[in-house]
Amino acid sequence: MLVDQNDKVYTELWKISTHVKSLEASIIREILKISSQPGVISFAGGLPAPELFPMEDLKLAMGEAIKKYGPAVFQYSLSRGITPLRELIAQRATERGTKSDTENILITAGGQQAIELVARAFIEPGDYIITEYPTYVGALQAFNYYQARYAPVKMDDEGMIIDEIEEKIIKYKPKLIYTISNFQNPTGITMSEKRRMELIKLGSHYNIPIIDDNPYSDIRFSGERIPTLKSYGGDEVIAIRTFSKIIAPGLRIGWLNGPKEIIPVFEKVKQCTDLHTNTLCQYMIYEYIKAGKLEPHIKVIIEDYKAKRDLMVNTMRDNFPEGIKWTEPNGGLFLWVELPQYMSAKDLLPKAVALKVAYVYGSPFFPDGKGMNTLRLNYSNATHKGIVEGIKRLAKLFKDNM
Amino acid sequence: MLVDQNDKVYTELWKISTHVKSLEASIIREILKISSQPGVISFAGGLPAPELFPMEDLKLAMGEAIKKYGPAVFQYSLSRGITPLRELIAQRATERGTKSDTENILITAGGQQAIELVARAFIEPGDYIITEYPTYVGALQAFNYYQARYAPVKMDDEGMIIDEIEEKIIKYKPKLIYTISNFQNPTGITMSEKRRMELIKLGSHYNIPIIDDNPYSDIRFSGERIPTLKSYGGDEVIAIRTFSKIIAPGLRIGWLNGPKEIIPVFEKVKQCTDLHTNTLCQYMIYEYIKAGKLEPHIKVIIEDYKAKRDLMVNTMRDNFPEGIKWTEPNGGLFLWVELPQYMSAKDLLPKAVALKVAYVYGSPFFPDGKGMNTLRLNYSNATHKGIVEGIKRLAKLFKDNM
Repeated sequence: MLVDQNDKVYTELWKISTHVKSLEASIIREILKISSQPGVISFAGGLPAPELFPMEDLKLAMGEAIKKYGPAVFQYSLSRGITPLRELIAQRATERGTKSDTENILITAGGQQAIELVARAFIEPGDYIITEYPTYVGALQAFNYYQARYAPVKMDDEGMIIDEIEEKIIKYKPKLIYTISNFQNPTGITMSEKRRMELIKLGSHYNIPIIDDNPYSDIRFSGERIPTLKSYGGDEVIAIRTFSKIIAPGLRIGWLNGPKEIIPVFEKVKQCTDLHTNTLCQYMIYEYIKAGKLEPHIKVIIEDYKAKRDLMVNTMRDNFPEGIKWTEPNGGLFLWVELPQYMSAKDLLPKAVALKVAYVYGSPFFPDGKGMNTLRLNYSNATHKGIVEGIKRLAKLFKDNM
Repeated sequence: MLVDQNDKVYTELWKISTHVKSLEASIIREILKISSQPGVISFAGGLPAPELFPMEDLKLAMGEAIKKYGPAVFQYSLSRGITPLRELIAQRATERGTKSDTENILITAGGQQAIELVARAFIEPGDYIITEYPTYVGALQAFNYYQARYAPVKMDDEGMIIDEIEEKIIKYKPKLIYTISNFQNPTGITMSEKRRMELIKLGSHYNIPIIDDNPYSDIRFSGERIPTLKSYGGDEVIAIRTFSKIIAPGLRIGWLNGPKEIIPVFEKVKQCTDLHTNTLCQYMIYEYIKAGKLEPHIKVIIEDYKAKRDLMVNTMRDNFPEGIKWTEPNGGLFLWVELPQYMSAKDLLPKAVALKVAYVYGSPFFPDGKGMNTLRLNYSNATHKGIVEGIKRLAKLFKDNM
């Protein structure tokens, strides 16, 4: 070696930027490490059921894409995404009641990058964001880098309590309203039709973009379908969507659906961060959907997750002690448990892991770190046997600590 | 529609953040639009030759990956990248003289995301970066978002003129030294061994990370191989590498090779921006390399690009008028032309396009927008016929305007 590097600690010698220094590693990733110990039944992750991935059809779709488009599927492509996939996404949205053109769509590296682009495009240090309380921890992480502050809004079983919002808008002049309106992560709650309409009117009146982070709406297994926020609000809403939960998350293909004039702004931002999203997987997904494979596949997912949710909820009803409440979502991947106020889901986690069962405690989902008595359970990634056994173990744990 | 959206212009009504508002769209992307008119021979892009993409072998590698690892290739994966690919990259680097462990490697969405992560991790508004003069325009774009300032260093045919650097370090206290030490984009120049050693000593002495953006070093077709900056400098250097130029850019797989303790910092940053890089393509590239396909494929690329460079340089020698200088790179994708001082490559571009030939003029590569008499030519993406005909047209254009 040319220079002496003994004892050098580069994280101290090199000047890391203040905002990055203060970023915390995801608590959830830490919990996932704990819960991935052998033999642990984990309800902690947010993973789709891997046994449902349409591997053979995706492989066929890739072969088809190579045959039809040749080297283009391996070449650099446009920052906004490949045109045929953008067209198809716009068409699919329109068929489902959200009138969209190709020019409304920007392809992203999964929903997370769409959140990141929105944060970068709008947030300056100290800006407020209206969020649900609790909300998706990955969004909080993306917003935190930009030094956002939060004006969180409590939820009931119709979603955000709208009465609280206008006052917060006037007081905090928020840059964004961020919601997960369908089968929310972490609570599983869906915003009612009435609330959707009220929210749109507020966003429109005060000119605040409504960001509808919507990865789950296709996975509804009970209750009436409610049209998306964007189908009511049109250009007032920027929808964040992804194929992660309905095809496969490892492909990292998501998209933004927003006003035509805002798409070039996001494109410019995306261009400096990664040039463009993986070309091959865009073509692969395009061919997969073109072949008519997506809609039947979504039915398979719905049936599978419905059975798992039913089993989890029924086992909870039969075994959980009095004093514990939980949501019974009509779709998505998660349900939400509230222990009595005096109990700490965080303190109980090590005991749960000792009993070989794991969950994510709720506090990281609250912008203010509260909600100590809450926890999130995932059912999509569990087996039937694991659900029954794991819920029984949790029931015993809770009983023993009440 | 629930609310009246007539005449609303959302880019005016919504408050886009100041740094994003001031971002300029890439001039190069604009030039590419002009140069993609039918019939235009374009030396403007920076694209690898698509006819060389190892499509069949990649398809086989994907089949192999699915067979071996099953649904894991479609599932969420670690923010730092899949372990087998990180291991293989570390091993390949070590074999080539850069001692590396798995823990030194972080997988990124191409080299561009690695640049973005470095910018985010280190740059605060007003910080200085030492760059070559000219340098890669995509790096300037990534740095500009973070409001970097530049202390550019002139080059001769041995690369950055090191004598100029120490004074700039003392004066500007730069956060980073950013170099493209091999077959530089845009000039094609390679830093000499002596300069590499001097640069390492400076970076080490002043504790400034040296960022070696190195997409091209495997594509050397003449001259002696010079060990990489990182092989001299070890942990003093963060190397940015990519499979874009040696396998295929559309897969968006690159990596960072840096000190072990800095990798978790980059991982944290990456996690909030896109969770992780495409799992499928990581496994696909892993299987492709494991099958021994990469090294022979690089030989094919070298042979092809060498012939194109030779043809371009020979045609220039035979046709370009006196007073024009150019570089004759030993590798990579680009060469660099200097017209007489009084000529403007920017003003000549519309005339070139009228003659059905295109290039990128040099000024966007200069942090201060100078270098009006320079231009970049790409040979990797051209045909032999196109090279001869296009260079002749440029020769005529230059003669007519001298």
